[in-house]
Amino acid sequence: MTSIKRTTEKSLLLLSGRAHPSLAEEVASCLGIGLLPLTAYEFANSEIYVRFEESVRGSDAFVIQSHTAPINEWIMEHLIMVDALKRASAKRITGVVPFYGYARQDKKHRGREPISARLMADLFKAAGADRLICIDLHTDQIQGFFDGPVDHLHALPILSNYVHEKYGHEDLAVVSPDAGRIKVAEHWSKRLDGAPLAFIHKTRDINRPNRSIARRVVGEVKDRTCILVDDMIDSGGTIVQATEALMNAGAGSVVIAATHPIFSDPAVERLRASAAREVVVTNTLPIPADRRFEKLTVLSIAPLISQAIHEVFEDGSVTSLFDEAMSC
Amino acid sequence: MTSIKRTTEKSLLLLSGRAHPSLAEEVASCLGIGLLPLTAYEFANSEIYVRFEESVRGSDAFVIQSHTAPINEWIMEHLIMVDALKRASAKRITGVVPFYGYARQDKKHRGREPISARLMADLFKAAGADRLICIDLHTDQIQGFFDGPVDHLHALPILSNYVHEKYGHEDLAVVSPDAGRIKVAEHWSKRLDGAPLAFIHKTRDINRPNRSIARRVVGEVKDRTCILVDDMIDSGGTIVQATEALMNAGAGSVVIAATHPIFSDPAVERLRASAAREVVVTNTLPIPADRRFEKLTVLSIAPLISQAIHEVFEDGSVTSLFDEAMSC
Amino acid sequence: MTSIKRTTEKSLLLLSGRAHPSLAEEVASCLGIGLLPLTAYEFANSEIYVRFEESVRGSDAFVIQSHTAPINEWIMEHLIMVDALKRASAKRITGVVPFYGYARQDKKHRGREPISARLMADLFKAAGADRLICIDLHTDQIQGFFDGPVDHLHALPILSNYVHEKYGHEDLAVVSPDAGRIKVAEHWSKRLDGAPLAFIHKTRDINRPNRSIARRVVGEVKDRTCILVDDMIDSGGTIVQATEALMNAGAGSVVIAATHPIFSDPAVERLRASAAREVVVTNTLPIPADRRFEKLTVLSIAPLISQAIHEVFEDGSVTSLFDEAMSC
Amino acid sequence: MTSIKRTTEKSLLLLSGRAHPSLAEEVASCLGIGLLPLTAYEFANSEIYVRFEESVRGSDAFVIQSHTAPINEWIMEHLIMVDALKRASAKRITGVVPFYGYARQDKKHRGREPISARLMADLFKAAGADRLICIDLHTDQIQGFFDGPVDHLHALPILSNYVHEKYGHEDLAVVSPDAGRIKVAEHWSKRLDGAPLAFIHKTRDINRPNRSIARRVVGEVKDRTCILVDDMIDSGGTIVQATEALMNAGAGSVVIAATHPIFSDPAVERLRASAAREVVVTNTLPIPADRRFEKLTVLSIAPLISQAIHEVFEDGSVTSLFDEAMSC
Amino acid sequence: MTSIKRTTEKSLLLLSGRAHPSLAEEVASCLGIGLLPLTAYEFANSEIYVRFEESVRGSDAFVIQSHTAPINEWIMEHLIMVDALKRASAKRITGVVPFYGYARQDKKHRGREPISARLMADLFKAAGADRLICIDLHTDQIQGFFDGPVDHLHALPILSNYVHEKYGHEDLAVVSPDAGRIKVAEHWSKRLDGAPLAFIHKTRDINRPNRSIARRVVGEVKDRTCILVDDMIDSGGTIVQATEALMNAGAGSVVIAATHPIFSDPAVERLRASAAREVVVTNTLPIPADRRFEKLTVLSIAPLISQAIHEVFEDGSVTSLFDEAMSC
Amino acid sequence: MTSIKRTTEKSLLLLSGRAHPSLAEEVASCLGIGLLPLTAYEFANSEIYVRFEESVRGSDAFVIQSHTAPINEWIMEHLIMVDALKRASAKRITGVVPFYGYARQDKKHRGREPISARLMADLFKAAGADRLICIDLHTDQIQGFFDGPVDHLHALPILSNYVHEKYGHEDLAVVSPDAGRIKVAEHWSKRLDGAPLAFIHKTRDINRPNRSIARRVVGEVKDRTCILVDDMIDSGGTIVQATEALMNAGAGSVVIAATHPIFSDPAVERLRASAAREVVVTNTLPIPADRRFEKLTVLSIAPLISQAIHEVFEDGSVTSLFDEAMSC
Repeated sequence: MTSIKRTTEKSLLLLSGRAHPSLAEEVASCLGIGLLPLTAYEFANSEIYVRFEESVRGSDAFVIQSHTAPINEWIMEHLIMVDALKRASAKRITGVVPFYGYARQDKKHRGREPISARLMADLFKAAGADRLICIDLHTDQIQGFFDGPVDHLHALPILSNYVHEKYGHEDLAVVSPDAGRIKVAEHWSKRLDGAPLAFIHKTRDINRPNRSIARRVVGEVKDRTCILVDDMIDSGGTIVQATEALMNAGAGSVVIAATHPIFSDPAVERLRASAAREVVVTNTLPIPADRRFEKLTVLSIAPLISQAIHEVFEDGSVTSLFDEAMSC
Repeated sequence: MTSIKRTTEKSLLLLSGRAHPSLAEEVASCLGIGLLPLTAYEFANSEIYVRFEESVRGSDAFVIQSHTAPINEWIMEHLIMVDALKRASAKRITGVVPFYGYARQDKKHRGREPISARLMADLFKAAGADRLICIDLHTDQIQGFFDGPVDHLHALPILSNYVHEKYGHEDLAVVSPDAGRIKVAEHWSKRLDGAPLAFIHKTRDINRPNRSIARRVVGEVKDRTCILVDDMIDSGGTIVQATEALMNAGAGSVVIAATHPIFSDPAVERLRASAAREVVVTNTLPIPADRRFEKLTVLSIAPLISQAIHEVFEDGSVTSLFDEAMSC
Repeated sequence: MTSIKRTTEKSLLLLSGRAHPSLAEEVASCLGIGLLPLTAYEFANSEIYVRFEESVRGSDAFVIQSHTAPINEWIMEHLIMVDALKRASAKRITGVVPFYGYARQDKKHRGREPISARLMADLFKAAGADRLICIDLHTDQIQGFFDGPVDHLHALPILSNYVHEKYGHEDLAVVSPDAGRIKVAEHWSKRLDGAPLAFIHKTRDINRPNRSIARRVVGEVKDRTCILVDDMIDSGGTIVQATEALMNAGAGSVVIAATHPIFSDPAVERLRASAAREVVVTNTLPIPADRRFEKLTVLSIAPLISQAIHEVFEDGSVTSLFDEAMSC
Repeated sequence: MTSIKRTTEKSLLLLSGRAHPSLAEEVASCLGIGLLPLTAYEFANSEIYVRFEESVRGSDAFVIQSHTAPINEWIMEHLIMVDALKRASAKRITGVVPFYGYARQDKKHRGREPISARLMADLFKAAGADRLICIDLHTDQIQGFFDGPVDHLHALPILSNYVHEKYGHEDLAVVSPDAGRIKVAEHWSKRLDGAPLAFIHKTRDINRPNRSIARRVVGEVKDRTCILVDDMIDSGGTIVQATEALMNAGAGSVVIAATHPIFSDPAVERLRASAAREVVVTNTLPIPADRRFEKLTVLSIAPLISQAIHEVFEDGSVTSLFDEAMSC
Repeated sequence: MTSIKRTTEKSLLLLSGRAHPSLAEEVASCLGIGLLPLTAYEFANSEIYVRFEESVRGSDAFVIQSHTAPINEWIMEHLIMVDALKRASAKRITGVVPFYGYARQDKKHRGREPISARLMADLFKAAGADRLICIDLHTDQIQGFFDGPVDHLHALPILSNYVHEKYGHEDLAVVSPDAGRIKVAEHWSKRLDGAPLAFIHKTRDINRPNRSIARRVVGEVKDRTCILVDDMIDSGGTIVQATEALMNAGAGSVVIAATHPIFSDPAVERLRASAAREVVVTNTLPIPADRRFEKLTVLSIAPLISQAIHEVFEDGSVTSLFDEAMSC
Repeated sequence: MTSIKRTTEKSLLLLSGRAHPSLAEEVASCLGIGLLPLTAYEFANSEIYVRFEESVRGSDAFVIQSHTAPINEWIMEHLIMVDALKRASAKRITGVVPFYGYARQDKKHRGREPISARLMADLFKAAGADRLICIDLHTDQIQGFFDGPVDHLHALPILSNYVHEKYGHEDLAVVSPDAGRIKVAEHWSKRLDGAPLAFIHKTRDINRPNRSIARRVVGEVKDRTCILVDDMIDSGGTIVQATEALMNAGAGSVVIAATHPIFSDPAVERLRASAAREVVVTNTLPIPADRRFEKLTVLSIAPLISQAIHEVFEDGSVTSLFDEAMSC
């Protein structure tokens, strides 16, 4: 006999860095498993140390880390975990990235800039990631930055179902805060029974040259419930100014909806003080209790992620997840 | 003595495939050199054969090919020329791509699609291209698809200078034919003294469900000279329907401006028959004499390309070319 | 519990480009499955679009495309399908290439030429192909051009069995049309009971210098049934001139046998008009009904391909297929 | 004429991240040039932005960044600068790393750990670095982690010259704080006229099992001026305990010498309070004014770095720098 | 039906080069299988030929070769076997390297040297090895030279158990023959109930300058049974001189223990003639019968290797093997 | 000032391994330089050590090594030299390979064999070679195995000029010893005024089945001076049997000509005892004095190699060297 034969087994493992543990636990719970135990901490000089407490050999490993601030810290921890998985003989390594850091640097806006979103894709490849699962990338083209399969999930069904159920009976308009992202608004419009589109156009104020920017509303919003949509809310300036511009233009009310609640300072203060009726986001990024405010609604992205992991593991279809909201 | 020493010389060579020879000759003429003589033809079974007639060893080679129809033919010829340069010891190989094929397949619109724009970047890398020079890529992110430097040139100064000179004294509006490309229109607006923006929004026609699409003009165009801008005109359907929608919305007149005249059938017929006052394009793609029509204006892109090649060769700054139209 | 365990399943999928659908269907039928449904067409500017209609995630995918004219079109479609499979998470991708394009450009015949056969191997690697299945490559060394496993199949058993059965009782000679391919003739000779070898040697005609080439038959062919063998018939010039040379040298009759019927114009006319008694080929390339002629015999390669796919999928031995003709 | 010819010029550029600007300025000053002006800051969500203010096209670029805390921040900035240089067509990119982060994770101490020092080398390669210049890597083998040339410089001549001049007339011993690094002590011994060696051996204290570790001095130190040498001082625990062990063993006095002053808390407090007579380090890492203390001596590494950059740029010999201290 | 489905089977194959067949057979026997039959010999000009006699398609192949002299011969055979496995479609290829050649060239000791240990790792990667299994690498960092998983096994439990059982009741000291490898001695000390450490320090003899080197024993060895430990014994000079130095320093007796018995000439003569009481090694390298001597003890490494192969194949834990000696 | 500018110099260095020093010295002498001094020897366990004695930083380095027996030894030394050059910052590394080892294993003759000729190309790439210079590769396709430029030189002009001058006035035939290499004979024929071709065809002897092979001469050789040509002479069996077959077939005399004199035992004995009138070879491989025999003529290949190196260094044309013999 010159060989030993075995039926091959595959084994799904879920690992999480320290950036957003509650989301990872929620995903694990949807999958009905526990997170793989691991040790992770910083040395005195801020180098990160990671070690897995159980064997990962031969596994189909999914490593989840959301790139929240301090973002370089968490990206590096993500990369180090991928390296450790590779060297510990995981069979396949999928980076799960609820929020993909540096996504906005997806092109050279001017000469002599980096394309950091491509660099991140290359770093994950260099560390040993075989594939990625991402949610609402800033531009779809980022999928093409990674040299391997990328499952690109969309929070739109989750967000729009919520909005439709709560505001669908009102007279709606879908508004993009910026000319460059009207395409997203078009997708929203389709899911909100063809609600009319509008966008905010920034121009120099002719009366106060070189000093200020005017925000002109292009499209009809008068007396309508405006659903102001974006992929992310960072420090909140753009979205809050758009809210004001809409109210000035006679909008009935403004509901803000976005996938990624980055909420850099002073986003929370701005949103809380704004004229917005409600702010709807998902939990792709952590929002500590003391940064939550009354009109903020956080929908869970965990069912979508766990379903995608399940389909990837079982060789099912992720495409089929694109049109429906789901629960776990 | 254990070495021979020489001062290093660099030598710029310009080579062209067979897709758009007149542009290559014009670029060569701007640079004050001739194209490197080469042999290129098809074998009986349509395989392409290429051979350079002079040594390219040690050269800084720029290979120009515009990806016009039959596009796969010309892309393959481009790749084969790069392979031949690599094996003939060219020192540095720059692919010059006035029109980059498959640029519109820059993301997975739906599951199980290729990202052909990334594939093309990978093919050029595999063949041996060190760097690319491109013009008005369909999306800026394609720059990040190539693993190496990409000089991304813009025809906007050439096109907008022409439009400004001819129509600048009229009451203008800048119009995007599609919600997804308003950003381009914003750049135009800046160069046309802040002319107001508009875009065409496609929606289901409520009166004839499932049968037709209505085109709604979002923004003010009444009585204005509408500059309808896009990166390319393929079969012309979108742009001509946008022209009609603008005229129906009361526009004074419509001037169409685009960088890439793909002009697939029946673009020429459509444009000729349209209400457009003028159609302004560049010669990044060939337009045979019998496809030119009275109201078509073709501006030459050759000075821009030759200037970029010159800067790349001389280690100058390409960024400095971004804001001015130039002649050779 | 920190993992989900499953027995691993593998799943064979067969996909086909549009170059030679009838062969793909025949292979599928031999395997007892259907081709995976897909959409493929050209855009107005001749860019190719491909999308799979069913999930390919985790599959062992075999993509068949024969590189017939227009060859660059079909190679590019092949590459795009591989890219789409990679991004749709196929587990292993095998390019099945009944006829491998550009195989004759397998070396630099002169300086400053490409090695296009190597380039093609690199392009398939860059697109994401893990392995190749090929038939009668122009030279065996091409197997070494691809960075991965190549299963190289031979049509010799199919062709020689047919010839042996039909002509084995006659007095045979095996003839190579060219000095460079006598090795192939030697393999034939072994399977035809050690029939003697001959080859055609091209020389300058001493009497008409610089104007014509003489074809000298080296070896004994007088009154014999000459089996004139080659790997491919392109435009048919060489093979028909060899037929004439053999008849002039007193051959009894000439039977032409080749694996790949490229049949570029005017091959069909030439062969039909030639003195050849029969022309035997396989269907690695499509031959439309109107290009078939009376003395042409087409043997099916589908059983060989399907058997090889079966062995690759089942981890069996492909080497064992080398010596026998098979049916499905 | 089919080419333009030029004599090739090379151009040295020095760029610095924000981790340790004073060292970079000192290096620039030694080289007699200024640092290339650049913009670098963090976005609200802590993503880093970098842009060069002048063209770097065709340059021989040296990017200096010392990996001090917050270390992941500065490594990521370093990588982003390399990416931007690559995309802006720098000809050669050398990462200058006075202190190489994660160097101590140069092997798997236990199973399921990363080898982060190799990962860092791979990340720099992925970003586009052609070569590295490093100083006193934690182990020499790290040089082999990078796939390209690494110039590995040593601070030993600088440190030992200083020590020799000040203490050479006393009765010396060279002491390693740890069994694993006696090799370094051997190099010191050679430069200090063959001073005898000793090391500290950590063992379980037999009298207090499981509770404490005894530090045994192996070698003769009685009444000697002990030069306690190491490559780095992190939080200072090991080195201060070694100092105590030496004093307890009857050492005359203890002088601490190390290349890299990481000085994580509470290193400064520990060193200040220790029995050490002097602490000698270089400025490979920044030491803010308020962390400097009376018996601390900081020697400049800038002349060594600038000399190495000069040799690399001029194609001279870096090996020749290994045996002498230098000034600029 | 568009697919054929099968449960995936994996199949362990063990292959061996010709360097150390008896070890390979012992490993196979521990695993309960036979070695895969293969043909291997040299052509007249010393090129190596290898061919497998049975199909390896889809297998999990482990190729064992110990890098003994003539070392370049056996490394090349190892690489060629990996290449043949890759091209014959083995699914996963693990190089099993009981003794890793060129491990001592793991850094540039001086400028303009190779780092051959890294080169070997790169050659195995280039040939197609997915992973390595190694034993007692000269430095742990070599694990980081290979771009993939490396299972690094230790002979310490096997050697130290033997020593402990035989000499544990005596008064022991653990001695390193060289300052650079005291770390290894520390591991031994832990397993020998905390026996005291010592090392041999080489210095210039002050009395006979430039002519000889003195070996000073640092640490207490008087009247003790000295366990002199190293990773390998090459020509035996260092270890035998260390033995003498220990005896001169009053050691009771000296037992030499090392993993790798390279035993280059004149190692056997030196060891036989030395004052050592016993020499204990493993069989990672072959020791022909005529090179064995009375006080030599050879312990088998085969159980450790076979257990590691078993764990790797079964996706078990190799880390768990680190602390125990095992038998098969 | 933010940069230092210098005119770039390039510097040609020639290095040689220990396989065939006299050829390297002859090449150096043709180039008018000395070989770079280096140290190379074997350690006791047969590991090779190499170090360059002078700086190679920034150089255009040509490393010559002919792959003679013991072939694995010299290939490994070649690879190690390339690695050392890469790590010592040579700017460009060209492997000069007068005889390319393993060239005959350029395809899988049967299943489960390696393609060692491709493996060698990959090893040189992995070690860091940028390009190769080779002479009369066993098949031209090997040029396509290396991922980079290969200058493929031909000894034909040198050999055929000599033969033409000495035997051109006689009645010649050009004979291939094997059906597979008649193409080479065709090239000879062209240079020998169109001398007729013949080849030796091996067949089973019908009278003594399964026991011996008959060698049949195909073509006319009666009373002619037969120039028996091949690329290499290994143990001489084929070529000497061909000589006999020719004499038996009535040839006037036989002159053997080949590029590579491998001369494995018992080639020298066989050739000396054969009926051949003269044996003409080049010195791509070393022939020690005691293996030279009276009718052996050795022509120097050094002028061709040095001219090629010169052209590569000076960016001249190597193609132009193909048709003429040269002297230095």
